[in-house]
Amino acid sequence: MRHLLLLSCVAAAGLACDGGSTPAPPAKPAAAPAKAATPAPADAHAKAQKLLDRAKPLYKPLPTYMAKAGAERPSDAVIDLGRDLYFDTRLSKNHDISCNSCHDLATFGVDNEPTSPGHKGARGDRNSPTSLNAALHIAQFWDGRAKDVEEQAGGPVLNPVEMAMADEATVVAVLSSIPGYVERFGAAFPGEAAPITYANMTTAIGAFERGLVSPAPFDAFLAGDLTALSEAQLDGLATFLDTGCMACHAGVAVGGQGYFKLGQVVPYETEDPGRKGVTGNDADLHVFKAPSLRNITKTGPYFHDGSIASLDEAVKLMAKHQLGRDLPDPDVKKIVAFLGALEGTVDAAYVRPPELPASGPKTPAPDPS
Amino acid sequence: MRHLLLLSCVAAAGLACDGGSTPAPPAKPAAAPAKAATPAPADAHAKAQKLLDRAKPLYKPLPTYMAKAGAERPSDAVIDLGRDLYFDTRLSKNHDISCNSCHDLATFGVDNEPTSPGHKGARGDRNSPTSLNAALHIAQFWDGRAKDVEEQAGGPVLNPVEMAMADEATVVAVLSSIPGYVERFGAAFPGEAAPITYANMTTAIGAFERGLVSPAPFDAFLAGDLTALSEAQLDGLATFLDTGCMACHAGVAVGGQGYFKLGQVVPYETEDPGRKGVTGNDADLHVFKAPSLRNITKTGPYFHDGSIASLDEAVKLMAKHQLGRDLPDPDVKKIVAFLGALEGTVDAAYVRPPELPASGPKTPAPDPS
Repeated sequence: MRHLLLLSCVAAAGLACDGGSTPAPPAKPAAAPAKAATPAPADAHAKAQKLLDRAKPLYKPLPTYMAKAGAERPSDAVIDLGRDLYFDTRLSKNHDISCNSCHDLATFGVDNEPTSPGHKGARGDRNSPTSLNAALHIAQFWDGRAKDVEEQAGGPVLNPVEMAMADEATVVAVLSSIPGYVERFGAAFPGEAAPITYANMTTAIGAFERGLVSPAPFDAFLAGDLTALSEAQLDGLATFLDTGCMACHAGVAVGGQGYFKLGQVVPYETEDPGRKGVTGNDADLHVFKAPSLRNITKTGPYFHDGSIASLDEAVKLMAKHQLGRDLPDPDVKKIVAFLGALEGTVDAAYVRPPELPASGPKTPAPDPS
Repeated sequence: MRHLLLLSCVAAAGLACDGGSTPAPPAKPAAAPAKAATPAPADAHAKAQKLLDRAKPLYKPLPTYMAKAGAERPSDAVIDLGRDLYFDTRLSKNHDISCNSCHDLATFGVDNEPTSPGHKGARGDRNSPTSLNAALHIAQFWDGRAKDVEEQAGGPVLNPVEMAMADEATVVAVLSSIPGYVERFGAAFPGEAAPITYANMTTAIGAFERGLVSPAPFDAFLAGDLTALSEAQLDGLATFLDTGCMACHAGVAVGGQGYFKLGQVVPYETEDPGRKGVTGNDADLHVFKAPSLRNITKTGPYFHDGSIASLDEAVKLMAKHQLGRDLPDPDVKKIVAFLGALEGTVDAAYVRPPELPASGPKTPAPDPS
């Protein structure tokens, strides 16, 4: 809104909005220049502790498994089946697309495309978000239309511009034609008369995805390791908090927990209706789920449409459109340095492409039509 | 989610989550007990400045008028007409309910009822939120189904359990029957052949509501007055920020800018589907707009259903269900003390009930049926 703009000011980099009630630090003596770059250990400790105190109410370290509310971690049989399905291109009409095609676990759960090629190279309107840590989000998709990773997993398989399977029965028939899946669904869902169902498929994929956690230096920091972040990352965290980024990017996923209007302060030009596409409601025009910032340094291009290639540019635009701030380049760099501390690692064994069960005689051939 | 709970810890009151890396402050000497209660001015100044530095990235002082994005403040003729309409019970079937009945400007824009009595005493399911500062919200209603105060204003007039008018044409006929309104709509919307329309009515009410700002001590603080908050309020602000309340209650309205799941960490029992009622989508079950905390000390009872009478209880429940924290009572008290600093004042002249134009011969009589 216009009036917010008029009131906004650059609070980043320690500049006070009221024009200088914060006294300038005393000039540094010129002596001992070699030491000036590295603060004394006690100072560095105090600085890190102060930032940890600011960060702790907003953030938490990643769990080891993102279990469903009130549920335990599923059996390994379910999770392993989910991994198979995640990597299996036979869930697509032309046997050329798996979950992993757009959410590539070798590249931080994304394909780094603005929008992802689907069946016959068709592309949708939205950027594929990373599957890493996605189970922590309030809901799935940019517009939050699926309630969890299980519900999400059922979407692309049947989407004509994605994996393009005809219907749930077709998918179940394909899975049932693969002897190894008959066995694996049976082991994953014991006691069920007909364990191969579309719902069990999405349950298994979701169960696998709930293990896609990527602990990062920031998690070690949150757990109390004051040396986990570099000096530049600590400065960046301070700038991130001073700029107000945490107003939308809070919680264990550093975002992903709420819905906000893209262009909250300064309108943002986009054709995408956002949640209005789900609700049909003018009030939801350009409202999106705030994305998680975990691994954001690796998951470009950015924004719902993948239209922003540079993370620096993305940070600058967010500051402008969401917070009404004209962020100076040095502050952008600092924030991006902090975002590097959100770059995590996944368990290599957990995400290794599995050996998939062989097709059976009745498994349909790829269909490029 | 369950796993979040396991990781949560009480970060409030300066307790470190990792069990004590923050050294305890040195024991205070027993001397000069009379001075112990009041910090030296320099200390108080430094403490307030530090909190101001933390608050500024998240909050901004209220504007004097909450103009529509890209629009100027409307003419006084429009705003004054809006005030008349806001107070006019002839916009209800039985001439017994006006906007002000449920959003009483003499009592901080609310009626302090859990849910408000409408036509024939009927009550809806949701608590009437305050109209003060409401124009700053991302959208209107607890579920955000109306995009702005103008769209909101058109809802209750036609709602059978609220003002219960039959349809827009009936409302236009009532307004047209009142000679004073013929004149006032003409002055407010000059050049229009038929200025009395339902849309112009909601435009005028919205224009009036956009002036319902209630600047509070917190605004003076944000503008740089380090003495604007009491010692207890400053302590409360620190506790509010240390607890993580700003993850949902940020922005100029201290909330109202995003949608979150009620029961984000610990599930909250409620029959209300929240935004699922708007979207029909399971992912939106129990998702609500985070309310503004401005004037929250005066706008109870609390929550979407008005089921929580005590603000202390509301704070405690929010900490538990949204943040997974078991907030000790002293911290609850501190936060409530800070919330007192959000209690503002409205311009008495602006909200004074106006002299309404007299009914004409064709104005329908009250209809209690």
